[in-house]
Amino acid sequence: MIFSEELQIVTKHQGLLEITRKVRDAVTNSCVQNGLCTVFVRHTSASLIIQENADPSAKRDLEYFLNKLIPENDSGFTHTFEGPDDMPSHIKAALTQTSVVIPVVSGEMTLGTWQGIYLWEHRASPHSRTIVVHCMGED
Amino acid sequence: MIFSEELQIVTKHQGLLEITRKVRDAVTNSCVQNGLCTVFVRHTSASLIIQENADPSAKRDLEYFLNKLIPENDSGFTHTFEGPDDMPSHIKAALTQTSVVIPVVSGEMTLGTWQGIYLWEHRASPHSRTIVVHCMGED
Amino acid sequence: MIFSEELQIVTKHQGLLEITRKVRDAVTNSCVQNGLCTVFVRHTSASLIIQENADPSAKRDLEYFLNKLIPENDSGFTHTFEGPDDMPSHIKAALTQTSVVIPVVSGEMTLGTWQGIYLWEHRASPHSRTIVVHCMGED
Repeated sequence: MIFSEELQIVTKHQGLLEITRKVRDAVTNSCVQNGLCTVFVRHTSASLIIQENADPSAKRDLEYFLNKLIPENDSGFTHTFEGPDDMPSHIKAALTQTSVVIPVVSGEMTLGTWQGIYLWEHRASPHSRTIVVHCMGED
Repeated sequence: MIFSEELQIVTKHQGLLEITRKVRDAVTNSCVQNGLCTVFVRHTSASLIIQENADPSAKRDLEYFLNKLIPENDSGFTHTFEGPDDMPSHIKAALTQTSVVIPVVSGEMTLGTWQGIYLWEHRASPHSRTIVVHCMGED
Repeated sequence: MIFSEELQIVTKHQGLLEITRKVRDAVTNSCVQNGLCTVFVRHTSASLIIQENADPSAKRDLEYFLNKLIPENDSGFTHTFEGPDDMPSHIKAALTQTSVVIPVVSGEMTLGTWQGIYLWEHRASPHSRTIVVHCMGED
């Protein structure tokens, strides 16, 4: 069984946006009971991570730290014509994930109790992001 | 053929713990000859990487560098109630991997000569970590 | 359908080398119409990322930033016998990807318009790198 679905996610600004429920719905729609769920973001200035979904302060500190680690207006940057947040966005995407792969067992992703799947918007302005959710396995 | 197994790994402290042999045993148990092996850690303060397994000094320097890059007690952190090592753990996990996917060809993972699979415990105190090893393919 | 192919890529120096066309050719050869393409690098001092392929300045700034973030000759490094660029290479590999997984739909990888697949050589001198391209799915 192979199933794929595109999600369109509208982001308002920089930051982590939880998409676990949308991915879980796609896994349910796929009817895959045992297999793999692959989540793939079709952009280079947004990325994916699996992170703690229990306490919003963890999310906030992740955003804070990555902004501190990769600041805008680095005097060495030459790729600047799309704005000061663009090159840091590509670097943040390179240091996190374009795809995450999660085993599916008995119809459920094997996420831990506190794990959520997040789209990380790295650009400052709103964007429409396309994510492919792909499920492959047996029903 | 689809096979999945949970590994329970007890960690003693922060650092890289090689799990290549345990993953290899799961691949053998799966009877998959050609396919994919996915290793997935069900936590957000521990992560996975594939790294050099020849010289322990590479492992030590990786631990040293990540601790220097993401120090405890950053004055900007707000997620502090689980201890000073908790928020750095989430950041280290976000910058490394929650899952690694390795092709299986002729019954063997296609790891290079010096590649090992590691669980990276980011917390200071001992933890019991659950890892899913999932194999899918043909026998 | 399961197909795998090894690519040998000769690198001349540190930096990003686009391999999208070679991976696309392997997907075509595999005859997989719907499934997963996994790209896996069999080394620990080179890695993979999916990044912007439109403007060479993005590539250059990525290289610049990672070199600045992880400089050679850190006085804390002990793994130094293979040269000053070796330990930074392992760290850069740990912070990027050993494998990338891309859904295949209707015979094509679901890469976005500006996404390219890159081998990132982290060593200063030329190397021959082995990459496994693995395709699994239905024809």
